[in-house]
Amino acid sequence: MADYKAPLRDMQFTWFELFNYEQHLQSLPKYADTSKDIVEAILEENAKFAENVLAPLNQSGDAEGCTWSESGVTTPTGFKEAYQQFVEAGWPSLSCEEAYGGQALPESLGLTLSEMVGTANWSWGMYPGLSHGAKNTIEEHGSEDQKQTFLTKLVSGEWTGTMCLTESHCGTDLGMLRTKAEPNADGSYNISGTKIFISAGEHDMADNIVHIVLARLPEAPMGTKGISLFIVPKFNVATDGSVADRNAVSCGSLEHKMGIHGNATCVMNFDGAKGFLIGEENRGLNCMFTFMNTARLGTALQGVAHAELGFQKSLDYARDRLQMRALSGPKNPEGPADPIIVHPDVRRMLLTQKAFAEGGRMMVSYCGKIVDVINGGDDAAAKEADQQLAFLTPIAKAFLTEVGFESANLGMQCFGGHGFISEWGAEQNVRDCRISMLYEGTTGIQALDLLGRKVLGSQGEAMKPFTKEVHKFCQANEGQPMATALAAANKRWGELTMDIGMKAMNNAEEVGAASVDYLMFSGYVTLGYFWALAANKAQEAIDAGKGDLEFYQAKVQTAEFYFARILPRIETLATTMTSGADNLLAMDADHFAF
Amino acid sequence: MADYKAPLRDMQFTWFELFNYEQHLQSLPKYADTSKDIVEAILEENAKFAENVLAPLNQSGDAEGCTWSESGVTTPTGFKEAYQQFVEAGWPSLSCEEAYGGQALPESLGLTLSEMVGTANWSWGMYPGLSHGAKNTIEEHGSEDQKQTFLTKLVSGEWTGTMCLTESHCGTDLGMLRTKAEPNADGSYNISGTKIFISAGEHDMADNIVHIVLARLPEAPMGTKGISLFIVPKFNVATDGSVADRNAVSCGSLEHKMGIHGNATCVMNFDGAKGFLIGEENRGLNCMFTFMNTARLGTALQGVAHAELGFQKSLDYARDRLQMRALSGPKNPEGPADPIIVHPDVRRMLLTQKAFAEGGRMMVSYCGKIVDVINGGDDAAAKEADQQLAFLTPIAKAFLTEVGFESANLGMQCFGGHGFISEWGAEQNVRDCRISMLYEGTTGIQALDLLGRKVLGSQGEAMKPFTKEVHKFCQANEGQPMATALAAANKRWGELTMDIGMKAMNNAEEVGAASVDYLMFSGYVTLGYFWALAANKAQEAIDAGKGDLEFYQAKVQTAEFYFARILPRIETLATTMTSGADNLLAMDADHFAF
Repeated sequence: MADYKAPLRDMQFTWFELFNYEQHLQSLPKYADTSKDIVEAILEENAKFAENVLAPLNQSGDAEGCTWSESGVTTPTGFKEAYQQFVEAGWPSLSCEEAYGGQALPESLGLTLSEMVGTANWSWGMYPGLSHGAKNTIEEHGSEDQKQTFLTKLVSGEWTGTMCLTESHCGTDLGMLRTKAEPNADGSYNISGTKIFISAGEHDMADNIVHIVLARLPEAPMGTKGISLFIVPKFNVATDGSVADRNAVSCGSLEHKMGIHGNATCVMNFDGAKGFLIGEENRGLNCMFTFMNTARLGTALQGVAHAELGFQKSLDYARDRLQMRALSGPKNPEGPADPIIVHPDVRRMLLTQKAFAEGGRMMVSYCGKIVDVINGGDDAAAKEADQQLAFLTPIAKAFLTEVGFESANLGMQCFGGHGFISEWGAEQNVRDCRISMLYEGTTGIQALDLLGRKVLGSQGEAMKPFTKEVHKFCQANEGQPMATALAAANKRWGELTMDIGMKAMNNAEEVGAASVDYLMFSGYVTLGYFWALAANKAQEAIDAGKGDLEFYQAKVQTAEFYFARILPRIETLATTMTSGADNLLAMDADHFAF
Repeated sequence: MADYKAPLRDMQFTWFELFNYEQHLQSLPKYADTSKDIVEAILEENAKFAENVLAPLNQSGDAEGCTWSESGVTTPTGFKEAYQQFVEAGWPSLSCEEAYGGQALPESLGLTLSEMVGTANWSWGMYPGLSHGAKNTIEEHGSEDQKQTFLTKLVSGEWTGTMCLTESHCGTDLGMLRTKAEPNADGSYNISGTKIFISAGEHDMADNIVHIVLARLPEAPMGTKGISLFIVPKFNVATDGSVADRNAVSCGSLEHKMGIHGNATCVMNFDGAKGFLIGEENRGLNCMFTFMNTARLGTALQGVAHAELGFQKSLDYARDRLQMRALSGPKNPEGPADPIIVHPDVRRMLLTQKAFAEGGRMMVSYCGKIVDVINGGDDAAAKEADQQLAFLTPIAKAFLTEVGFESANLGMQCFGGHGFISEWGAEQNVRDCRISMLYEGTTGIQALDLLGRKVLGSQGEAMKPFTKEVHKFCQANEGQPMATALAAANKRWGELTMDIGMKAMNNAEEVGAASVDYLMFSGYVTLGYFWALAANKAQEAIDAGKGDLEFYQAKVQTAEFYFARILPRIETLATTMTSGADNLLAMDADHFAF
């Protein structure tokens, strides 16, 4: 059994058949010469790297974990060598600007590559993944000098990056942060404070680490309006751009945690470390928000990754494992028992994973196209796209990680008792997945962002471009069962939004009381749209006798499964989200337990 | 923060206020002299042991785990000493027959004690927990000689027991098992084969281990009708009852697994080990079934345990952790932020855990009363009770472990990123809980047992005593909102059963296609009944001015939360369970992935 097989056929379907990737790229000045051939060659090459280099290190990396010592952090055996190969192949520079050594390929393609890397080995993928945030920040807000010094090295992959936000007393509530930045005479700053949960904060895979750090200047205003953003390198950089002496930043310890053991989650101590201001003073949080959507899409991918990996593992097992007979009589009469894939409930678990993995891939790819439009060189289109992305991102992040975790658990469940045993990798997949609902803003935070900030904050305007697109599709396919169900769900979505909006005018707490159910409802409808689209495309191909019949039939069948067994979850959610805040707020905080 | 605080007030409420425990015990000849004072004293004493001895070993036991060596398995530091205290206090003998050294206290009380032990430290609790199955088997099916030799030592706790069923190629499908038993001239048997996943199979806590082993006699019929049951002690027993030489059974290795690290999950090698037949030849599986219900109730408790522990941990954290302000304005204006318990979504997560922990406690206690009736000395009542228990057990086992796992995850989610870090214990609670949906029959297996074997197998008769009780309650409380909702759910339950039963007459696969949704539906309605009961009792106490007002109000509020936010899950389940088998069976097994 292979550790991981990249779902290239499905990726091709999603990009080229469903989302007209060629036309999409040709329509954007920046990506117009990225041909189908180029994309396919890149996908295939990356698949090989993910399958052959990264996947074999996934279980061993979990078992071995990272090791802390005074002199630094050692990553699991093979991680460093894999990173060297990754850099040599030029993967880090793929979607970066050419001016700084990048290949200027579309971000959408980068997301698909990240899916393969992350599914093969999520812990490993976080090392280059974290660089992404640092790159984006410097690219967007850094000075030309900072770009030449730091960005070029991040783009080449010689150095990696981190994002240092969280402190022990504040994660969500960054306004409370205490790390200090004191100005030096030479224009640099001395950074002092302790950051926690810093992924890839210290390791042995690259020559230098570029920390992007949130800190307060002396006399800065209280709260989020007094936060500035700094570059703090692990090693100071000489004027010729080479690595010089060690800066006063170090990893104090590694966190013991549930999963992603191959990634170093560091407590980082800044003891008057030399740093450089990015952007304006006290505007640090705004700088961060500009790339937050992309970072959250990266986490949405984690839901897809663990759904896909769990699906692959449990599908192999369900085809091989012989246990009991089908209720309607033996399907493998010569064998001692039937393979468990004959049992309807095992199929329910497999199809749920498949629907979320392939559906999530559609959702992230759709968002990826929007990112391309934002970066693609057409400013008017970019502005509109930016709003669309702002609306879809919290849905993609929270919904896909929630259903990704459900999928990972169902994958494990298919193994019966063997699922609990480390050997099969199914339990690691659950442990690794669990963080995705927590970091980059918990599900609860995404839900407040969606319902409070985006939807109600815009009087519902933010959702309209998407719900109109769904509405158009339903109209164009009137009478089709899926379109009918989708149209009803889409309509209900709007009504529920109105309903909660009205309630919230009397009591702001109604937003928080409805938000997570609202987000999940939004997710199921959104995914329903993509599955209906996919079923249509697949049916067209079948009708046109395009070949690959089995693939297209499976698409239609998965869509039918989704509409019959998954989309109806919105019924309950519609009820619970409108049940009001009272049933949550009535109880005195002191009376929850006696 | 305490590691665990036994919810004694809630246990008192459940037993004495809700389920009239005194009258219940007095009505059964065997338990008539178990007074309220005795019960309360036992609960308090056990709570102290769980809180002070076991809970402090929970996290350290997880971190340290068990260690294998040629000479045996070493349990985590402190486990052995805690077991000595447990034995010295007489806890193992509590609900055993007096003839073999037991105290003949009701099994229902034993369940409540097991909840405390298991919530404090599930891994530790499995060592005496596994003895339970061995005790029951020998008590029910062993010869007098076997009882004197083995049962007395299990009752005193000097020795512990195991259940050796699973082999690597068969867990659910025990008909395929291969372990052999060859008769010796002296009436004993030589047992040869390998068993896996043997909890507490080898350890250093007791002088001897009594394995109950399923094996095949030579020429035994194929399948489940050719399985016999044997006692195989770790050490042979001398005629005076003392431990003699080592038997040919040993632990080959320990499994690496997701959680319950403090418990030894063993591969057990039987190399011609000396064993003794229990009951009749080839009737081994029937012998096992007689105590399966009790064993499964023990696992149902695990759902309650992890819901309770997750609730306690996350409640403490939610009261302490300051982060952000309430949407309706500061609730802690002097502090830097509000405690997160002000946020409605955090309350949703806390109340969900509370509703499942306290609701699950009601469900298991209700089942415990039925067990008492079975054992209580009235044969006619026992027969009826046996059928009731057979119906409720798969619901309790699968539903409570599923919602227990949901609760454990919500508990972890309340911690934000800190939940992923081992230090807080929330992630251990999730890992430890995960096994409960797998062992003692997966959720899928319980669901087939419930819908196929119990409900449809009896043409619906099996569910009637319970649904009638619910119906009566609803009639007696007509007009009350909860009773109205419950009556509708109860009615729908019956209709859905009919509907699936009709479909299943044409296609047996319809049973498997509906079964898990049907089981979860059954669980939500059953729990709805207990919450409605609890709300009624609490309201009576409030109306009567009985004092303890805050406790009773919280009960009513939790019930209201349950009916508003949890019970509506049956809406979706009703839709999906009746969507038919086709959406699961249509796809060819070879077309799930390309």
